[in-house]
Amino acid sequence: MKLVRFGSRGREKPGLIAADGSLRDLSGYVADIGWNELSPAGQKRLRALDARALPKVRGTPRFGVPFTGISKIVGIGLNYRAHALEAKMPIPTEPVVFMKATTCITGPFDPILKPVDSTKLDWEVELGLVIGRETRQVSEARALDHVAGYCAFHDVSERAFQLERGGQWDKGKGCDSFGPIGPWLVTKDEVADPQALRLWLDVNGERMQDSSTADMIFSCAEIVSYLSRFMTLLPGDVICTGTPQGVGIGRGRFLQVGDRVRLGVEGLGEQEQTVIATRQAGSRR
Amino acid sequence: MKLVRFGSRGREKPGLIAADGSLRDLSGYVADIGWNELSPAGQKRLRALDARALPKVRGTPRFGVPFTGISKIVGIGLNYRAHALEAKMPIPTEPVVFMKATTCITGPFDPILKPVDSTKLDWEVELGLVIGRETRQVSEARALDHVAGYCAFHDVSERAFQLERGGQWDKGKGCDSFGPIGPWLVTKDEVADPQALRLWLDVNGERMQDSSTADMIFSCAEIVSYLSRFMTLLPGDVICTGTPQGVGIGRGRFLQVGDRVRLGVEGLGEQEQTVIATRQAGSRR
Repeated sequence: MKLVRFGSRGREKPGLIAADGSLRDLSGYVADIGWNELSPAGQKRLRALDARALPKVRGTPRFGVPFTGISKIVGIGLNYRAHALEAKMPIPTEPVVFMKATTCITGPFDPILKPVDSTKLDWEVELGLVIGRETRQVSEARALDHVAGYCAFHDVSERAFQLERGGQWDKGKGCDSFGPIGPWLVTKDEVADPQALRLWLDVNGERMQDSSTADMIFSCAEIVSYLSRFMTLLPGDVICTGTPQGVGIGRGRFLQVGDRVRLGVEGLGEQEQTVIATRQAGSRR
Repeated sequence: MKLVRFGSRGREKPGLIAADGSLRDLSGYVADIGWNELSPAGQKRLRALDARALPKVRGTPRFGVPFTGISKIVGIGLNYRAHALEAKMPIPTEPVVFMKATTCITGPFDPILKPVDSTKLDWEVELGLVIGRETRQVSEARALDHVAGYCAFHDVSERAFQLERGGQWDKGKGCDSFGPIGPWLVTKDEVADPQALRLWLDVNGERMQDSSTADMIFSCAEIVSYLSRFMTLLPGDVICTGTPQGVGIGRGRFLQVGDRVRLGVEGLGEQEQTVIATRQAGSRR
């Protein structure tokens, strides 16, 4: 299934994309796409519905983040060899782990907010992996049983914040709007092999990244198993699995206000964002 | 007010500590200590109650994390000069920021789980700061208006995971049970000066850390203002403000199964944890 949430921010309704590509309204059946719907039992209930009998949604509503209940976003750094080289970083011998603040998540077509003082705003197309059940110390062989599905993920990054502002990456990874997710959560049964997906990204129509998840250093199964030895993973947790070569820091070119980013992961849909300036303000009360 | 949650894990009730030190049950008035109760209006409603008229809780129930709705835990690294020196790290010129997975939070008297493969389990007593309202780009002068209150925080850390396993600290900061919080959330009105609190930590009765928040490099107000330029802070978000000197990595000594840690922050109560081994298991379904 391709699960979605559509409508204005904070008022999204659950839906799915039918086989004919039409958007169907699920709100008569479930209140939202959350922990219950991500679980194996919840997916089974949704799969039993006849998508063609669900109400068609008229018009072209906004797509929101396709599921709720994200307690954490764990990032894997430098997981493509050519990207590690362009970033002038050593090839990792075990997964590099960082975190993105959950306040960074945003819909797949919402704008990217260029932070105040940002000078090196960068793009990173990634395969996002969504956990489906509580997971601790899972073996590599069983790790993918704990995955609900996959999504396109844009791991927006500010390189000056990440690398030049005192030691740890998180500062440049978790700014508001730095985590576009979607448009679809594609359930695992529809992704035959997560290590054989093309992924690409354009800036203003120019191809910047074009690679395949086949080039990952650590596979999805290895990553889930590895992380589950350090922390409990919960349903709805998102793991962004790293980006291939072609990012701005390797090109000496960064995103500016007005730039348009378009990206996609094979079978998981496409995103498009425009970069806008963050409103400089005092505290908004 | 000293707000608490008491009872078994996952079934905590809201309460408060009355002026006579007794534990009082708030469950007749609020369902939990969450976003609403942390807000200025919610605190005002609770403050209007006559604590002496609230039901006294019998016995000695477990204390849980004293509030819910923690969307993120942001850590500030190396925020005490003498600790940066003992850790053989440079004195920061701006706050070092990392994140702890929210799955690490635990009650103040719950055990610390020594992770499988852990060799350098370490202690860090800290002043925890709890956000009370949605915060973006707040000035230093107004930053403390956005704080709901303060709590003792144990920033449990695994130094081998943090420093020897591939690049970023988060791997050694967010393991399950690495975030004991409480016992109390002390509302801001009861903390005259957050930069004048003694904080200390004992391991098996031996004093390891003994310092004051006066020694912080970046004050609470500076930290909140700084972070709010990078990300939105939400009510319930916790900022752990760094630990003073005296941790295990500086002494070449680490926590072992059976060790008891006791710690406190002046006016915010005391915690005690025993270190136990993580049960080695396959995936728990």
